Amino acid sequence: MPDNIKFAVIGGGSWATAIAKMLCENQKEIGWYMRSVYIKEYILNEQHNPNYLSSVEFHTDQLKLSNDINEIIEYADYIIFAIPSAFLYDELAKLTVSLKNKVIFSAIKGIVPESGLIVGEHFHEKYEIPFENIGVITGPCHAEEVALERLSYITVACADENKAKTMAKNLSCSYIKTKISDDIIGTEYAAMLKNIYAIAAGIAHGLGYGDNFQSVLMSNSIREMRRFIKRIHSMKRNINDSAYLGDLLVTGYSVFSRNRMFGNMIGKGYTVKSAMMEMSMVAEGYYAAKSAHIITEKQKRKSKTPIIDAVYGILYEGKEPKKVFKKLTDKLD
Amino acid sequence: MPDNIKFAVIGGGSWATAIAKMLCENQKEIGWYMRSVYIKEYILNEQHNPNYLSSVEFHTDQLKLSNDINEIIEYADYIIFAIPSAFLYDELAKLTVSLKNKVIFSAIKGIVPESGLIVGEHFHEKYEIPFENIGVITGPCHAEEVALERLSYITVACADENKAKTMAKNLSCSYIKTKISDDIIGTEYAAMLKNIYAIAAGIAHGLGYGDNFQSVLMSNSIREMRRFIKRIHSMKRNINDSAYLGDLLVTGYSVFSRNRMFGNMIGKGYTVKSAMMEMSMVAEGYYAAKSAHIITEKQKRKSKTPIIDAVYGILYEGKEPKKVFKKLTDKLD
Repeated sequence: MPDNIKFAVIGGGSWATAIAKMLCENQKEIGWYMRSVYIKEYILNEQHNPNYLSSVEFHTDQLKLSNDINEIIEYADYIIFAIPSAFLYDELAKLTVSLKNKVIFSAIKGIVPESGLIVGEHFHEKYEIPFENIGVITGPCHAEEVALERLSYITVACADENKAKTMAKNLSCSYIKTKISDDIIGTEYAAMLKNIYAIAAGIAHGLGYGDNFQSVLMSNSIREMRRFIKRIHSMKRNINDSAYLGDLLVTGYSVFSRNRMFGNMIGKGYTVKSAMMEMSMVAEGYYAAKSAHIITEKQKRKSKTPIIDAVYGILYEGKEPKKVFKKLTDKLD
Repeated sequence: MPDNIKFAVIGGGSWATAIAKMLCENQKEIGWYMRSVYIKEYILNEQHNPNYLSSVEFHTDQLKLSNDINEIIEYADYIIFAIPSAFLYDELAKLTVSLKNKVIFSAIKGIVPESGLIVGEHFHEKYEIPFENIGVITGPCHAEEVALERLSYITVACADENKAKTMAKNLSCSYIKTKISDDIIGTEYAAMLKNIYAIAAGIAHGLGYGDNFQSVLMSNSIREMRRFIKRIHSMKRNINDSAYLGDLLVTGYSVFSRNRMFGNMIGKGYTVKSAMMEMSMVAEGYYAAKSAHIITEKQKRKSKTPIIDAVYGILYEGKEPKKVFKKLTDKLD
């Protein structure tokens, strides 16, 4: 593999900042695009992101920062998208340079709302990127722990094993262990679905269910996730690998997860709208629930997905959380 | 099935008290043996256990309490043992009445230290109880949440399906859902092994590993548990069912788990002996680690059990937790 591969990160949030940190452990220079002029200038002057992972110090001579996505895309060979899925469509609309011959990695855990596709599929269908140039970077990994340099494991998936290895090598360091996979569809769906299950865990908590129930909910969630993904893309995979079960657990059991927090507010009686306003952002799992619902509705023989159905009913059909969960408890075991 | 089946609980601790509560939801009278005269008298006078789940009110006319294990065993047809595994041998030594024709359920999560056997095997080998008269009651279930009547799911395993159903029916109530299984060996080993993994989770926490690592540890634990149990008793089972994965999660993620707490102290630098003294009890996982180690050592082709090996090395071979876990992190993925 060539030595002079250039890497770039797209996004100015916490996960993008964590990935920039990992890449800087391995590369002399990386490209980094963010929308906000303020954040870019702040990083240049103060050596850290003002809003996210602000304890992480950067050497600014390692950073080619820009507010122009085209400049950064042109600069890099491997481009990692780490922005909320809800912003991807608009960011890509700014492109004037070609994505041809670029290797695109998605570190986005969600569905592109405008296309209803997971990010890899979106790039493939809308930008004609061949699947061997598309990859996924997935956890289990809270960005905050990367900032603290706490040991974390990352899975890098790509149909082209060499590209997965190249990406993995450039994220690995003393506190990051990496594993490669060829399951780009499964890992990305897992990353999306886990947010729905985290919302479910939050709703359950908000309704007053305890730890015994949470463990049953997670046990049912991983079985439901396995069925869902298998129906979409059947291949040999161990759903208990870190990229699937680990990722579910780190989100479902985290009190810091935005999706769990969103669910918790719903469980406590907030309306969907007021919970969103209170959080001043939309949890990824909100879109994921709709997309997952659409996917199962299209199936001739519908997957058995009682947890997704419950979350969808509450978020989109105005159903009462307490009643929906009462019914759900009869479907779990 | 006959209507006049009599049930009894052996033990005065929190899990025994929770099971007595569930049985009282279904039976007019139950037998209940406990060693302590004080606790027996206290329950008779104050209608609740002074030491465990003291918020649970009993109707004492429903309780046939005794400090004589023989009296209670003679009284009952279905006997549920819910005492720490370390006390079972001594309690059984008191028996003068026969266990013949009795149905024995184990609600003990561990190994009988004196025989190195799981409880079901111990009764089978030492008391010639046929396997169709042996069952297991397993979680995921913190007794404290049963006291609060928070929805919990219990798995009842018995080779004889009708006996599993009878037991399950008599534990079920508005806050307890039950499921039956025929995997008495697998569910009991799972209940034992999860305590080792909870110790591992505690050690990791004590050493300063974060949530990202914990999720990887749990993901590796369930895979290790699957391999371990499959080698001992190969049958069709879904390791992600609540009785296996759910039980692992409720323990591994609980800050109240004694096993996790014990591990945490070890991780923070306590010696094994001082951690035990501080807790004034022995965590079940301590014995389980030794038994699991002996089992794998006897295998011709040793199971791959890096987590059990790590815990065993720390608890029994005086190895340094920090070094052992550093090595362990290279074996996980």
